Amino acid sequence: MQVFHAPLTDRHNPQSFLVLGSIRVAAEQPERRHRLLSAAAAAGHDIQEAPPPPPLALERVHTSDYLGFLRTAHAEWSANPAAAPEVIPNLHPNRHMAAHPHPGTGIVGRAGWYQADGACPIGPHTWEAALASAGCAVAAADAVLAGAEAAYALCRPPGHHAYSDLAGGFCYLNNVAIAAEVLLQRYDRVAILDIDVHHGNGTQGIFWRRADVLTLSIHADPTRYYPYFAGFADEVGEGAGAGFNLNLPLPHGSGDAAVLAALDTALARIKDFDAGTVLIALGLDAADADPLGVFAVSTQGFETIGQRLTQLDRPLVLVQEGGYLCDALGASLAAVLRGVG
Amino acid sequence: MQVFHAPLTDRHNPQSFLVLGSIRVAAEQPERRHRLLSAAAAAGHDIQEAPPPPPLALERVHTSDYLGFLRTAHAEWSANPAAAPEVIPNLHPNRHMAAHPHPGTGIVGRAGWYQADGACPIGPHTWEAALASAGCAVAAADAVLAGAEAAYALCRPPGHHAYSDLAGGFCYLNNVAIAAEVLLQRYDRVAILDIDVHHGNGTQGIFWRRADVLTLSIHADPTRYYPYFAGFADEVGEGAGAGFNLNLPLPHGSGDAAVLAALDTALARIKDFDAGTVLIALGLDAADADPLGVFAVSTQGFETIGQRLTQLDRPLVLVQEGGYLCDALGASLAAVLRGVG
Repeated sequence: MQVFHAPLTDRHNPQSFLVLGSIRVAAEQPERRHRLLSAAAAAGHDIQEAPPPPPLALERVHTSDYLGFLRTAHAEWSANPAAAPEVIPNLHPNRHMAAHPHPGTGIVGRAGWYQADGACPIGPHTWEAALASAGCAVAAADAVLAGAEAAYALCRPPGHHAYSDLAGGFCYLNNVAIAAEVLLQRYDRVAILDIDVHHGNGTQGIFWRRADVLTLSIHADPTRYYPYFAGFADEVGEGAGAGFNLNLPLPHGSGDAAVLAALDTALARIKDFDAGTVLIALGLDAADADPLGVFAVSTQGFETIGQRLTQLDRPLVLVQEGGYLCDALGASLAAVLRGVG
Repeated sequence: MQVFHAPLTDRHNPQSFLVLGSIRVAAEQPERRHRLLSAAAAAGHDIQEAPPPPPLALERVHTSDYLGFLRTAHAEWSANPAAAPEVIPNLHPNRHMAAHPHPGTGIVGRAGWYQADGACPIGPHTWEAALASAGCAVAAADAVLAGAEAAYALCRPPGHHAYSDLAGGFCYLNNVAIAAEVLLQRYDRVAILDIDVHHGNGTQGIFWRRADVLTLSIHADPTRYYPYFAGFADEVGEGAGAGFNLNLPLPHGSGDAAVLAALDTALARIKDFDAGTVLIALGLDAADADPLGVFAVSTQGFETIGQRLTQLDRPLVLVQEGGYLCDALGASLAAVLRGVG
């Protein structure tokens, strides 16, 4: 399988993650690319460096204001000598300000407007790394347009928590949504199936009102888990998109049996939708060995997931999302790719 | 003038203020009560300790879910050995989740639901101090109901950024709103005039749809200043409350002339409304010597503000909001109280 990566993504090396009242180093580290790349190479896949994405590919998903913020935020922030090394928001629009229409002009207000949480710090090289990461997703979509049966984008930073105008949860540009828009140039209907242990809230939000992109997500029950306020089963889309979002939250501790049963439900919905091509938001943090420890999917379970995806008999674009440093990380990826075949 | 304070409020001693990407000690410190109390005592005012507020007074303003959160949040948070000493939210509902109806059950999600920003840490004694602070406001309102022409509540933590179900900006219980509800037992119409350098967004939100409480706020332009997403001149209330909110944002750097001109506009509106009694959300952080340094109101300016308030010829309840440690803090308060006479 063609595997697209970008060494430039290593330049995003986030040091600030606000969690439980403290600022710590984030788990979304450059070493993730190295581990995943080694595993893919060892399995004999066709490793390629992805070029930067065409600007138009980003603009189909993200607002120009948001892209401008991501590009200049760190420089604006750093102009204040009292500012920390990375941009972290400390306030946000709230539910009583729902009608408020604009982010203001200062960097603190704009950070709170365009960054959803304390898990998406912007450092000096975040923008170029996010661009390079999106480039991997575009390259994998292009490979499928060129005839490949499947392709894998080794994206980091990941993308599925990013909305059209809002970063969050280690994500800045929604790579899988960007790839979906590339595929929509050929296909009338595409499906995005998210198997990261966290709900793909950004992807859901981007396509919330659209019937041409079916979004599905299998993830840990958000009642007590990120993103907390989205990912419930009653979120089905609105307007033209009503019925084109399917959330399958599962209890914490779920293992192969529960995840594979949810996968079968999702695959049946995708077949019914008759997607021309299918994108997988491939989080590997559901692994039993993942440091998050929320789900307990085995390496064999990941291989079975890959096998069942092929039963769709549609071209597949796999886009890396979460999955954190542990001995099983590379093995989980290799298992999925082996299953897809 | 009767001055109501509560030594118990000293037990709220917040150590965690997320600002510019770092966690620092907050400016809203117990020493503020000591400085303000000393100034009021030196000026010969009648110093009294306020009793705790009756629960019903809180419940007229705040939801029971929110009060429950404030009461138990620190204990829930502290049950996690990895948690920092004070509750700080790291994620929040966002504008793409507007329809989401509930905060979930875990403390991290509930913190993000009930705490608007990184400036309202909850420590082990925040709840009892916030209660005692609200007690000061209730006592001052009761004094006016008992016949006083004016009374002053030395509240801290302050209250005007707190909504019915949301803490923020050093505020937990909206003291001036609670006092307003006490006064509404006697008066058909009350006005709340906020002269803190920050917009009184919580107070505005609480009475947003009501015609019996006129809310007015004179404050620094929020385009680049807290609370950033509220406080603009086009926010006038909705439904029955349409026309009963008046925001008077002023440029940063405004001094006596600009603030007094805005005050005259506000006082004319209050006269037109024919409020039976008037509450002042008395921030002193507009002082030229305040460490915030955003406005430049002189000590004489504060005395003139006090004098003009008496021209309303209505009972006045003054409720302390912001104003931070500097040599002028006590002098600013003494000047306002002298002006009111």
